[in-house]
Amino acid sequence: MAELIEHLRWDEDCLLLLDQTLLPTKTDFLKINCIEECWEAIKVLRVRGAPAIGVAAAFGMYLGLRTLNSADWSASEFVEEARKNADYLSSARPTAVNLRWAVDRIVRLIEAHPKETIPQILDIIKAEAISMIAEDNEVCKAIGRHGVTLLKDGAMVLTHCNAGGLATARYGTALSPIYAAQEKGMRVGVFADETRPLLQGSRLTAYELQRAGIPVTLICDNMAAMVMAQKKVDLVIVGADRVTANGDFANKIGTYGVAILAKEHGIPFYCATPLSTIDMSLAHGGSIPIEERKSEEITHGFGRQTAPDGINVFNPAFDVTPHRYVTAFITERGVVKPPFEKNLSLLFGS
Amino acid sequence: MAELIEHLRWDEDCLLLLDQTLLPTKTDFLKINCIEECWEAIKVLRVRGAPAIGVAAAFGMYLGLRTLNSADWSASEFVEEARKNADYLSSARPTAVNLRWAVDRIVRLIEAHPKETIPQILDIIKAEAISMIAEDNEVCKAIGRHGVTLLKDGAMVLTHCNAGGLATARYGTALSPIYAAQEKGMRVGVFADETRPLLQGSRLTAYELQRAGIPVTLICDNMAAMVMAQKKVDLVIVGADRVTANGDFANKIGTYGVAILAKEHGIPFYCATPLSTIDMSLAHGGSIPIEERKSEEITHGFGRQTAPDGINVFNPAFDVTPHRYVTAFITERGVVKPPFEKNLSLLFGS
Repeated sequence: MAELIEHLRWDEDCLLLLDQTLLPTKTDFLKINCIEECWEAIKVLRVRGAPAIGVAAAFGMYLGLRTLNSADWSASEFVEEARKNADYLSSARPTAVNLRWAVDRIVRLIEAHPKETIPQILDIIKAEAISMIAEDNEVCKAIGRHGVTLLKDGAMVLTHCNAGGLATARYGTALSPIYAAQEKGMRVGVFADETRPLLQGSRLTAYELQRAGIPVTLICDNMAAMVMAQKKVDLVIVGADRVTANGDFANKIGTYGVAILAKEHGIPFYCATPLSTIDMSLAHGGSIPIEERKSEEITHGFGRQTAPDGINVFNPAFDVTPHRYVTAFITERGVVKPPFEKNLSLLFGS
Repeated sequence: MAELIEHLRWDEDCLLLLDQTLLPTKTDFLKINCIEECWEAIKVLRVRGAPAIGVAAAFGMYLGLRTLNSADWSASEFVEEARKNADYLSSARPTAVNLRWAVDRIVRLIEAHPKETIPQILDIIKAEAISMIAEDNEVCKAIGRHGVTLLKDGAMVLTHCNAGGLATARYGTALSPIYAAQEKGMRVGVFADETRPLLQGSRLTAYELQRAGIPVTLICDNMAAMVMAQKKVDLVIVGADRVTANGDFANKIGTYGVAILAKEHGIPFYCATPLSTIDMSLAHGGSIPIEERKSEEITHGFGRQTAPDGINVFNPAFDVTPHRYVTAFITERGVVKPPFEKNLSLLFGS
């Protein structure tokens, strides 16, 4: 694997996070010391990407609970407080399911240890959060191993937003097959959609692929159709913020449009996703809550006002791609082809 | 018609141009006194939009030729100099055919007046350029009259880039039917794609529609698919920089993608174009030269670096939409439906 950025790690008594809002021109690490700082970092996208915010939130659970004086709290009060903290952290971003998945995992962990003292359970939570980094790395590497089977030598991949190392603990989901291909000595190139409004494609994907030595060409989102028409794209791989039981999935705004363009040009369209992003409790994509963000992201996106005062703006952070556009999902348990309703449920052994 | 911006006019001895690169936050008028200033204004998009750069270039022809001392030039040398100036102005932007069309019109005008003195022919050129403003206004109004028949009360139109009053002498092409609808008392709203990289949608279309009192919602280019999926768009109207004989057309990058999205959602897709933008000398869109612009438009879009140093960028300013995606063209001579090869040629009486 390429040398990737360790952008999220536990450092003695705080969470260290690379502030992704400052990339690519500055690489500043933040010390996250309390749950409120963790919430803010997730809310304003200092850490982003469904798997990465899950791991960050697990540490946020620890940071919130460690402030409690163990003498004052019963076991049941402690669980109740953990649930409140889980709701608080989840409120930072509603669409990605991993955030909820990670904080609920910590709550369940607490419930499973009713006999331990609070200092003991805090150690268990911290160890769990740290283990989630290694676990996410393994999951992403497995996605890479399965995904690389879909790539031919010389393949050109188009991706949208950033589902790379910066979106996970380390290796990425959509970009993991590309890093795996590089490790095998294959030549693979990438077209990176810049991904308005927050430019995760130009600020993050272009940055991490360039660092890794993978040929990458940056384009505006509205150039993807032309690049496909010129037969320069062999396949599309994107990540996901939430996949539903039927294979519909939410991902960064613009993904749905890319899926339509891929279909029109006969280009395979893959979604790389860990199982933790698949929400079997939702039947279809229409049930996924879609976060809308403030209009300034569009009107004052680049440090300068670029739209008239008082203009009406629609700024959904995500869209939903119906399952019929998806060629296959790339998961840590293998490549999942249609019918998704059946084949995704098989992953969960149900 | 709504009160529209008179962004281009002749003022005693110079061309006055609203500097569109500064919109929407500043409305500065530039005095264009010589052909070099005219070339620069077209090159860096201080004036843009196929019809508007045609008119500006006609004035540029006058500004270039008026510096010649009439005593030193024979009629044939004067025509030769005019041809050189025409080539020079055309070199500013290769894709829009109106630029070439306008300067060639001035050259032909000179050729048609071999007996006049140079001062006399200069007066004729100036008068021709001034008349092209009024002519363009009439053409755009006629496009509005024909286009409004395609709109129902309450219609929501999606447009890309700016083919409004700021792209023509005054009324616009794609937006003219919307102004015509407003004049009839119809309620019509617009979704404006911001149109990366230069944001003509947010800086210009949102600005001029807001000024005209037409409800407009600004979106990023990659949100168009979601807005269409939510059934919020009744039709798409865009402009054109060059239409070929078979109905393929070049327009601002991203137009082709919008056309595909419209087709996928069963939404009619119209291209509003004056006859001066139709290039019957080209059989199909593959022959249209596509301007590529500098990478800084993407990497340093609005006063701040948003991509890593040294990143590879692809920045085509236009794409080509094949005719099969076009429901109809809206011209000053009426709405033209398929088959375009036959029906466009009928417009030219051939």
